[in-house]
Amino acid sequence: MNGDLELRPPYLLFLGDAASALDCKTALGLVHWRPEECVGQLRYTNCRVDTGLPDMDIRQARRAGARSVVIGVAPTGGALKPDWESTLAGALDAGLDVVSGLHTPLDAFPRLANAAYRSVARLVDVRRPPGEIPVANGKRRSGRRLLTVGTDCCVGKMYTALALHHALRRSGHDATFRATGQTGIMIAGRGVPMDAVVSDFLAGAAEMLSPANDPAHWDVVEGQGALFHPAFAAVTLGLIHGTQPDALVLCHHVGRTHIDEFPRYPLPDLVTAIAAYEAAARLTNEQARCVGISLNTAGLNSDAREAALVEARKATGLPCVDPVATGVSDLLAALEPLGAAS
Amino acid sequence: MNGDLELRPPYLLFLGDAASALDCKTALGLVHWRPEECVGQLRYTNCRVDTGLPDMDIRQARRAGARSVVIGVAPTGGALKPDWESTLAGALDAGLDVVSGLHTPLDAFPRLANAAYRSVARLVDVRRPPGEIPVANGKRRSGRRLLTVGTDCCVGKMYTALALHHALRRSGHDATFRATGQTGIMIAGRGVPMDAVVSDFLAGAAEMLSPANDPAHWDVVEGQGALFHPAFAAVTLGLIHGTQPDALVLCHHVGRTHIDEFPRYPLPDLVTAIAAYEAAARLTNEQARCVGISLNTAGLNSDAREAALVEARKATGLPCVDPVATGVSDLLAALEPLGAAS
Repeated sequence: MNGDLELRPPYLLFLGDAASALDCKTALGLVHWRPEECVGQLRYTNCRVDTGLPDMDIRQARRAGARSVVIGVAPTGGALKPDWESTLAGALDAGLDVVSGLHTPLDAFPRLANAAYRSVARLVDVRRPPGEIPVANGKRRSGRRLLTVGTDCCVGKMYTALALHHALRRSGHDATFRATGQTGIMIAGRGVPMDAVVSDFLAGAAEMLSPANDPAHWDVVEGQGALFHPAFAAVTLGLIHGTQPDALVLCHHVGRTHIDEFPRYPLPDLVTAIAAYEAAARLTNEQARCVGISLNTAGLNSDAREAALVEARKATGLPCVDPVATGVSDLLAALEPLGAAS
Repeated sequence: MNGDLELRPPYLLFLGDAASALDCKTALGLVHWRPEECVGQLRYTNCRVDTGLPDMDIRQARRAGARSVVIGVAPTGGALKPDWESTLAGALDAGLDVVSGLHTPLDAFPRLANAAYRSVARLVDVRRPPGEIPVANGKRRSGRRLLTVGTDCCVGKMYTALALHHALRRSGHDATFRATGQTGIMIAGRGVPMDAVVSDFLAGAAEMLSPANDPAHWDVVEGQGALFHPAFAAVTLGLIHGTQPDALVLCHHVGRTHIDEFPRYPLPDLVTAIAAYEAAARLTNEQARCVGISLNTAGLNSDAREAALVEARKATGLPCVDPVATGVSDLLAALEPLGAAS
């Protein structure tokens, strides 16, 4: 793949003075999905979150083999605090890349920009897209692709894609997780932040992200946004057209009735959503079809969860899972007929 | 409107050593649609194109009231020639803005960057989007909006929008042409180059472009791309969602059978295209509907043109025009019932 971001594991996870696990989604995601790439955590004395990794300072992390420090905490207001800046400048001086998913680019902080200038280490902003993205060519390419799509944002598209990728690999398939958002990119170590790509190049970026591959290889692509989202549907459509998915998995958060923060926008039912996604995907891949449903049932008890799964299965006629509670093996089975073809 | 580009007419049109009218689409578009804002043309002795405007040098243009020189010719290879650079630096020295739709930003040319630095005049790149674009909020706003959409790129969406805007104004309606591409922005003197907007902000840019207005006011928005285009459909969708059009006018180039330069992608028939556009538009405006068809019949004789119009009318049940050959009054009539409501 040309020009996409590429991180250097293993990582020291910087938590600073994080007050709650919610602020540390990136760090916890890395520990969950890439434990082998996380050597330690760096916490100030007033930090109230613990990832379970050994506590280390920069020097110790370097000795333990760390090549990057990842800002694993979202600071209130989105900016670095002065003492964070000083710790991270020290990491650059010690030769560690500093990796960030913050809105503000790292080189906007003078101490970091200076430290990076005199260091071999890099400032890596995972929200910054690569420079050389082509316009999409729309040509079919070899290899199999799966894209997770959703009835809304934040319904489990990244988690479902990672779980499917993991299951495919474990069952002996050749597969690659393709990251399209900041946390996904940190977990994958590479990817393209689709929502930061200039719109003329969206589909081209998705083509670049999921290039031609062996006929039996699966790209499992993390979806973004939703076709029913009044602000972000364009990102979703460009990603669909460029990835040319053979298989779609529809993700839904049980109980959500409208687009988050957009009360005027009700969610479609699952059958309507599937039809819309299949129609969009068939522009660039007429074989595209939805192979299953992934429900996020967080907060439901096991009876309610089972009822939701049964109802979704009945409504759609497709395998339905909750990747956290049931695993994704039923979805994997639905991919086998596709994977066998070439 | 906040933060969009805003040009300063009247204009001196720079044609350089243009060899053919095709290279001068921007200049000829300005002369056609904004004759009152064009004071003259600047041509080198070997220029083979004539817009009909008086020939002037920079000094004469300034005396005639020009406030900007518009690069009205597309240079081979997309870069400025050295003698062009020297002429344009002279314009900046004389206090004229230099306006460009080239891919290369004007400040990439050192002589121009220097001249702009010491001048009150500006370098204006109409391909550069404004800095402060919000995420779309999806809320309905007052005023009427019409968006031209197409079966493909380059089928007459800008021309149709300009012709409708002209006709609305001439018949006493309050209306504004909203430009979304480089030539349109030069003609309107302002606008947002949608294809250059970061994808997360596409729908937000379209909302900003067509803000709340008087209930009887029409925004006539220039469409971009096509929902059936494998590279650019995302731009189209963001523009549709953000403009929340009450009325769509579908543009089609008669005889075109597939997406230009994408032979694998056949064009949909008009009825299919209308259904796709209405479905997309109804996410943010459930009243959205296609009110008519605009055919580009360039190259057909009058019998063939008439046959194409009759066939399109019969297939869609909607008024069909060729804005160049028949004018747009039939489309205007279809807007009256919408315009009367508020």
